[in-house]
Amino acid sequence: MADKKNLLLLFDHPTEPVFMDKGGNGTVFQIPDSYVTNRYNKICKKVQQRVCSKREQVPVKEIQVPDLSYPMSLGRAEQFSVFLKSHTEMAGHLIEVFVNMPTVDDLQSVAVYARDRVNPVMFNYALSVALLHRPDTKDLNLPAFSQVFPDRFIDSQMFRHMREESFVIDGSDSRNAIVIPVNYTASDLDVEHRLWYFREDMGINLHHWHWHLVYPYEAPIRSIVDKDRRGELFYYMHQQIIARYNAERLSNYMAQVQPFNNFDEPIAEGYFPKMDSTVASRAYPPRFDNTRLRDVERVGQIRVSIDEMKRWRERIYEAIHQGYVLDEDNKKVALDEVKGIDILGNIIEATDLSVNRTLYGNFHNNGHNLIAYAHDPTNKHLEKSGVMGDTTTAMRDPVFYKWHSFVDNLFQEHKRRLPPYSAEDLGFPGICVQGINVESRDQTNMLTTFWQQSDLDMSRGLDFSPRGKVSARFTHLQHSAFTYNVEVENSSEATREGFVRIFLAPMLDERNGIMELEEQRRLMVELDKFVITMPAGQSTHSRKSVDSNVTIPFERTFRNPDDNSPNKAIYDFCGCGWPHHMLVPKGRPEGMRFKLFVMISNYDDDRVVQASECACTDAASYCGLRDSLYPDRKSMGYPFDRQPRQGAQFLENFLTPNMSTVEITITHENRTEKVPE
Amino acid sequence: MADKKNLLLLFDHPTEPVFMDKGGNGTVFQIPDSYVTNRYNKICKKVQQRVCSKREQVPVKEIQVPDLSYPMSLGRAEQFSVFLKSHTEMAGHLIEVFVNMPTVDDLQSVAVYARDRVNPVMFNYALSVALLHRPDTKDLNLPAFSQVFPDRFIDSQMFRHMREESFVIDGSDSRNAIVIPVNYTASDLDVEHRLWYFREDMGINLHHWHWHLVYPYEAPIRSIVDKDRRGELFYYMHQQIIARYNAERLSNYMAQVQPFNNFDEPIAEGYFPKMDSTVASRAYPPRFDNTRLRDVERVGQIRVSIDEMKRWRERIYEAIHQGYVLDEDNKKVALDEVKGIDILGNIIEATDLSVNRTLYGNFHNNGHNLIAYAHDPTNKHLEKSGVMGDTTTAMRDPVFYKWHSFVDNLFQEHKRRLPPYSAEDLGFPGICVQGINVESRDQTNMLTTFWQQSDLDMSRGLDFSPRGKVSARFTHLQHSAFTYNVEVENSSEATREGFVRIFLAPMLDERNGIMELEEQRRLMVELDKFVITMPAGQSTHSRKSVDSNVTIPFERTFRNPDDNSPNKAIYDFCGCGWPHHMLVPKGRPEGMRFKLFVMISNYDDDRVVQASECACTDAASYCGLRDSLYPDRKSMGYPFDRQPRQGAQFLENFLTPNMSTVEITITHENRTEKVPE
Repeated sequence: MADKKNLLLLFDHPTEPVFMDKGGNGTVFQIPDSYVTNRYNKICKKVQQRVCSKREQVPVKEIQVPDLSYPMSLGRAEQFSVFLKSHTEMAGHLIEVFVNMPTVDDLQSVAVYARDRVNPVMFNYALSVALLHRPDTKDLNLPAFSQVFPDRFIDSQMFRHMREESFVIDGSDSRNAIVIPVNYTASDLDVEHRLWYFREDMGINLHHWHWHLVYPYEAPIRSIVDKDRRGELFYYMHQQIIARYNAERLSNYMAQVQPFNNFDEPIAEGYFPKMDSTVASRAYPPRFDNTRLRDVERVGQIRVSIDEMKRWRERIYEAIHQGYVLDEDNKKVALDEVKGIDILGNIIEATDLSVNRTLYGNFHNNGHNLIAYAHDPTNKHLEKSGVMGDTTTAMRDPVFYKWHSFVDNLFQEHKRRLPPYSAEDLGFPGICVQGINVESRDQTNMLTTFWQQSDLDMSRGLDFSPRGKVSARFTHLQHSAFTYNVEVENSSEATREGFVRIFLAPMLDERNGIMELEEQRRLMVELDKFVITMPAGQSTHSRKSVDSNVTIPFERTFRNPDDNSPNKAIYDFCGCGWPHHMLVPKGRPEGMRFKLFVMISNYDDDRVVQASECACTDAASYCGLRDSLYPDRKSMGYPFDRQPRQGAQFLENFLTPNMSTVEITITHENRTEKVPE
Repeated sequence: MADKKNLLLLFDHPTEPVFMDKGGNGTVFQIPDSYVTNRYNKICKKVQQRVCSKREQVPVKEIQVPDLSYPMSLGRAEQFSVFLKSHTEMAGHLIEVFVNMPTVDDLQSVAVYARDRVNPVMFNYALSVALLHRPDTKDLNLPAFSQVFPDRFIDSQMFRHMREESFVIDGSDSRNAIVIPVNYTASDLDVEHRLWYFREDMGINLHHWHWHLVYPYEAPIRSIVDKDRRGELFYYMHQQIIARYNAERLSNYMAQVQPFNNFDEPIAEGYFPKMDSTVASRAYPPRFDNTRLRDVERVGQIRVSIDEMKRWRERIYEAIHQGYVLDEDNKKVALDEVKGIDILGNIIEATDLSVNRTLYGNFHNNGHNLIAYAHDPTNKHLEKSGVMGDTTTAMRDPVFYKWHSFVDNLFQEHKRRLPPYSAEDLGFPGICVQGINVESRDQTNMLTTFWQQSDLDMSRGLDFSPRGKVSARFTHLQHSAFTYNVEVENSSEATREGFVRIFLAPMLDERNGIMELEEQRRLMVELDKFVITMPAGQSTHSRKSVDSNVTIPFERTFRNPDDNSPNKAIYDFCGCGWPHHMLVPKGRPEGMRFKLFVMISNYDDDRVVQASECACTDAASYCGLRDSLYPDRKSMGYPFDRQPRQGAQFLENFLTPNMSTVEITITHENRTEKVPE
């Protein structure tokens, strides 16, 4: 029987022929003759003799291969995109084939056959989804997408340098890491470029890819799409991105992002990704400054017209304002306090769970597409999509935030129609939070951010190059670790369980005035959420920043791919999550004032009973839990998801005794922590 | 003493370190320790031991290297462009250093030192110009630019395929040629794409590069710029490009090209080159449809404002209409029949020979720049120039022809002010051309065009890849060889020498009407020009198409780089010339009607006495002769360079007895001649 770990080798060197050596040790698959593609059918064995270290041969069973002509109809060099329905349908077919193979042996066989025949990115996507959802493979530790397709995450110039390093220098020991420059996509003439470290952060883009991998909007098997509260999570995860982005903008002395709500207006912000797709051998097309959207009409691929986007937008607004949507049978489905946001999320994204795709269309996805093809809307010039057309790259583009800010406005329109939480709703009788502070580097309520360099081996994504490690050196934001201390007075007689929510938001607006809560609540960034046990009387509860419930550990972003230690298992679900190095917004050199907020609610009201224990809980707030219910009964973003109650003009007025807030200062130190040589 | 042929090895693998093996036989330069760049100073020798086949070592003399800090100030990954004054000045410095080295040994030494320190394209350019102009190196056969920098001539996707071929398949024998697709830059939605085979032809683009290499507009040594009638040749060579392009447009049922004369109007024609620069590791930026020009203000690089372009244009028109230009001392210099066009050419291009750069500016070059930076005029997005910014790539872009059509309009404005040639001017008393015909494949006055595939080894431009031949397979236009037969009656008593000029032009305009001569003369494509000796009485003169005076032999475009046979010598001057496979325009499937025109003039009037014999005369009409005078005393384009005389409304009315014309049909056979396997 096949060792299922060999399946992971199929991710290596994604555009090299499947018979080449994999895994860095000269391992080759023993390909049945009938599986070899035409070009290589006479020479495959000879090549394997050259590249294989004899002992490492993986037998491949010869089977009757299912018909793959449908997924094979996408060209190998095309730009696979999950935002294109035609692409996800082809991928869906492939996922079905992979999931339905009776054994790992058969799966390996069909995957080996498919690998050189279908689009390499689609192959990666379909095999990843299948491995995640097959009971016999879901414990496999998938390689990071950034290491298999580094071209989607780093400056195209780095490839020349990495090729030089691996070609000139034999053996990876003396190879240098290739330093990715920090200012390659734009100059200071571009105000938006101040956010390069956020938009172009590898971890953030990986998070976005992972989220959409875990939550596809469409799949051949309904359970893959139909996950607990996935529509609401779509809203909340993206809302939090906008909240975080706006905090970064304020930190950089910029106004909050302007929502893109006028399809007729040129997009002022140009973006030149400076990345080449390995698979397409084409650069990601740029968008010039002031590019105007036009109807996208790419025959056989996609059609999006501006007028239908407007029609869907108006219908969604109408549904929100009427308080119900109409399903396919023209029946009213209420947008209520509990399920309304989830229904809306599925409609707006839109997913297979949309109650009426005919009426409400495919708004969010096609917004991406409309923008992604602005440079060549009719395919006249045979151009691929821009970065907005792919989940691995979309967050690099300033317009992503403008678009999602508008999408969030739709959700907020619904939330604004719900009754505000009353003081009673919010309270936790008997529990009084007496204070919160954070400690970091022996300082109280002072956090620091700085730059850090980290290396990541890119060799398995460097096709047609000599083997051995070749690292790229990233420069990214980092912060000093810190600890929250929450002081609680439990005046009830009994020990109580509390659910602690910690949020952070800027204190001042663009005019340096104290932010009103209705504005500030949308900037509230969830930092953590956890359960504490409070004995009667006073108690202090400490929590480390690294334990955050929204982030994945630093090592999952910049990790060693050969590390298959058990605690790294089930990577792909766990891979979803905000990168820990981006937990707190970049401060200002002179310090920037933030409000830290803590709330303790009654865990009895929030607790969700799960059928089984979940192995991977790192970033549950943004990513949910695998095969489980969302681990919080409250609305996501609670208590800031609705308009504040009458009288709560500022955060201070909003506080009930089970809440507290403190001003903290985040200071950015303009220094770079180097990789130790 | 160094073998000067080793200098040519320095062109190989232009972005690999200089100590790597060159020439395909494991030849390495023995680099003095002090020459090795920092990154490699500890490991250079070890790497050489690995890649060198012992016997092939080229000793390098260690010298006191001149200061190269000025040319080194251009980044290695920058896009070197001869249209940028700052770049040509740096290159000029380097040329001066190369030209002034006392011996080939010293030249080799400084070139080895410079190679890893200056921009690779600038290095190639400067060393090429220097080798061309040094008496001790000018007989060297420079490698084709297309083989050293294939990235400027072919689809970026080919590199992935070539890498695969060279990496997977060991030893070049079993490697396949990589077929370059014919329809990769656009679809049929783009009417302009019908001309792909012309605009994207490697030979045409090489011609353009070579012409500007032979005729730089600026150089540290005046003789490099100040060549006989170079201003006029600038006009004529580009005029002929437009004439040829318009013939191709008519053949493709398209209107003649619209001159780009309104800087305020968006450029309707977008262009997406789909090429990646090897040196910059960046894609050539596209231009979207309907891109508007904006002032270019790239600090430290270039400034061009639309208002100054308009000012220069108006001043040039004013000079033409007044019949004189003003020099730097404010003295009038007449734009007369003999020198006027040459003066204008130098002003408009503009070259170092411009009589007044302050007044007339840098019109043509900055037109290229204005368009080349339309996507990022302020360098806000750190983008390189588009294809219009480089002579190797500019002719791929439809806007090149719009721009040069307008530039040609300026020259025509001057030509229109000159008196028409009278019948006496044009005549050759005693000589009567009784007829002309062409024979091809046993047919008379019927030419055929078709597609042909040709291979070219790209391995010396494939850096950081295993060695050995890797070919790209081009599909290009071709025509069946043909022979002109000219029947002459010499009614004088004596043998006379005649200068035969043969032109071709479409017969019908866009409305299918007979073209008037004033329009047709601008479409007259020079096919050949040669001397014949006519005995008294009747004689027939045959001339083969392959002997054309405007083309270089087919083998110079698709040649074997290792072929150092003597007749390929002095390649670079000879390399200039229209590629022979593009001699005649593509026909229509149903046949297209052309007028073939022949004129015999008195060679005594046209002959130019040269100081010495010139070795390279292949394409003299478009490229002049090396170190010699332009080999024709008449105005370039004669007799069609001026308005026809009164009464010569159609070509037939223009004929004097020493001329003749015949209708020929060019038929395109939509078949492809394959490379024999």
